[in-house]
Amino acid sequence: MGSSNEDAKLAADVLLSADLRGVDSHGVARLGGYVRLWEKGRLNATPNIKVVHETPSTAVIDADLGAGLVVAPKAMKIAMEKAKNVGTGWVAVKNSNHYGIAGYHSMLALEEDMIGWSMTNASPLVSPTFSKSKFLGTNPISVSIPADKQPPVVIDMATTPVANGKLEVLQRKGEDIPLGWAQDENGNPSTDAAILKKGGAMLPLGSDRVHGSHKGYCLGGLVDILSAVLPGANYGPWVPPFVSYVPVPENPVGDGIGHFLGAMRVDAFRPADEFKEHMDNWITTFKNAVPSEGHDQVFVPGDPERELTAKRLKEGIDLLPPVIEDLKKIGESLGVDFE
Amino acid sequence: MGSSNEDAKLAADVLLSADLRGVDSHGVARLGGYVRLWEKGRLNATPNIKVVHETPSTAVIDADLGAGLVVAPKAMKIAMEKAKNVGTGWVAVKNSNHYGIAGYHSMLALEEDMIGWSMTNASPLVSPTFSKSKFLGTNPISVSIPADKQPPVVIDMATTPVANGKLEVLQRKGEDIPLGWAQDENGNPSTDAAILKKGGAMLPLGSDRVHGSHKGYCLGGLVDILSAVLPGANYGPWVPPFVSYVPVPENPVGDGIGHFLGAMRVDAFRPADEFKEHMDNWITTFKNAVPSEGHDQVFVPGDPERELTAKRLKEGIDLLPPVIEDLKKIGESLGVDFE
Repeated sequence: MGSSNEDAKLAADVLLSADLRGVDSHGVARLGGYVRLWEKGRLNATPNIKVVHETPSTAVIDADLGAGLVVAPKAMKIAMEKAKNVGTGWVAVKNSNHYGIAGYHSMLALEEDMIGWSMTNASPLVSPTFSKSKFLGTNPISVSIPADKQPPVVIDMATTPVANGKLEVLQRKGEDIPLGWAQDENGNPSTDAAILKKGGAMLPLGSDRVHGSHKGYCLGGLVDILSAVLPGANYGPWVPPFVSYVPVPENPVGDGIGHFLGAMRVDAFRPADEFKEHMDNWITTFKNAVPSEGHDQVFVPGDPERELTAKRLKEGIDLLPPVIEDLKKIGESLGVDFE
Repeated sequence: MGSSNEDAKLAADVLLSADLRGVDSHGVARLGGYVRLWEKGRLNATPNIKVVHETPSTAVIDADLGAGLVVAPKAMKIAMEKAKNVGTGWVAVKNSNHYGIAGYHSMLALEEDMIGWSMTNASPLVSPTFSKSKFLGTNPISVSIPADKQPPVVIDMATTPVANGKLEVLQRKGEDIPLGWAQDENGNPSTDAAILKKGGAMLPLGSDRVHGSHKGYCLGGLVDILSAVLPGANYGPWVPPFVSYVPVPENPVGDGIGHFLGAMRVDAFRPADEFKEHMDNWITTFKNAVPSEGHDQVFVPGDPERELTAKRLKEGIDLLPPVIEDLKKIGESLGVDFE
């Protein structure tokens, strides 16, 4: 596509890390989506990424329609530089595209004993509580927190009960989805895994008002505001869709989609050794919580993805045949040999 | 209790703002709790609040066992000063006590066109997903975001489906709670409103694994880590309880309970006028989302509390007879006339 080697390697690393962590929907299976956006002129493979506004602890970046896969790690590095200087750094990004898994970017901070933050808005699929309008993406929040001998705490979560990929999996299997994941076109509960194609919407974390869906709506809204209203990207229903055959909404309110990245130096608060020792204690305490009846293990955020990564590094990653076909086709069209 | 007039007024303001906003459980009804902690020597009415560590964008405060009601607004002011200087300010507080409603503190930032953040850990009542150990409080997150002509977005949410007060209300009425709010002592779902007294626990936002309770657990854990591991307060099962008759856990891992407060200058990212205009557009867009069948209005975070405040400022605030009795008793014991 004309990307620099460095950018191509970085993008590949972000996609592969999703596959390793078990977020298959955000891994190499998605490469085709980026290529098709590029073919339509909606993704720039050689972006001129610029800081357009800054203070000692903040910056706004215009990503020049680059792939978020490449833009977000660079924004994170700027946040970390600022954290080195003044304790914390916060970078909001506009004019970007899908950035892969949120956790990749927040985890970059761990190398420097920093707490990393990463959020992005995304194509609107989710309805606010009491509404049938699709105004929010599954807007993920990731925060990574370093420890000493224990592996880090890595939070990486959509602000919905499940990611959209889970609905697609059940749809392919011809199975129903549980109540509380999605609603129909009138805003009534639905168990139809294909309901999004019939005018339905995903629900915010909490599922319904009685179980706190207004809180999931708050979180999705927060991600939208920090990622997009703050830097000047598109928000709410104006977020441009990732799929290239869906047109970009008319009368945009900003540029591209937006991200929000942050880095907090641990030793801007207390000596790093002290903090990390207490994190080890926090982690072992929660890991050793007493399991409920029928369960034998309590997890700490990041454990399941780490277990899967270890397994996949050993056994390899299974790719579905359609993904392999798609990768072959992309290779042919761009002159890259599949083997 | 010997507090300065200034501190007493500030604490009263925080409690009253809870009553006005409809969070009755955190209003003047709770005054007795603070007094009883003070009687036990677990709350210092004349604290020497000190910054013990800082960088240009961060600080850690030792609250000297002061009431969080008084400590948190002061910590927020320090965060705002830092934001004025370098764009953002982040203050973690240790050795504190219950700070009332999270939203009071985050809203302080609005006066200066800043985005305010406020979190606190709290007495452990909530179990991690798959566990029956009570290791987390209802650990709230509040973020306040200024707008122009529209009222601000004010997020103020426990990281559980409901606050503990909702269980107490249904318990007094002799009614069941919905499935998804709490579990019994074995970690099985329960509809018993008194289940916490029988060894049960509250559930994280999401209610169960299928509906994303691991995400609520992530959020509660994040609040615990930022509020307590970062400044050196007690975390997880070591958080000292608010109720004075429950003893403080042995072998504390830090000092008191902890808070985390933040301020981000909007114009550290983009001109404030521009941001606030787009916030007006965000707010009116979401307010005008199409309601689901059976609903006639979609809310923006902060709307319900604002409506209730307007009503209560006009009609007054109903206090339950036991609350009035408790206030009278406190007044008698401290030589303050109730009228």
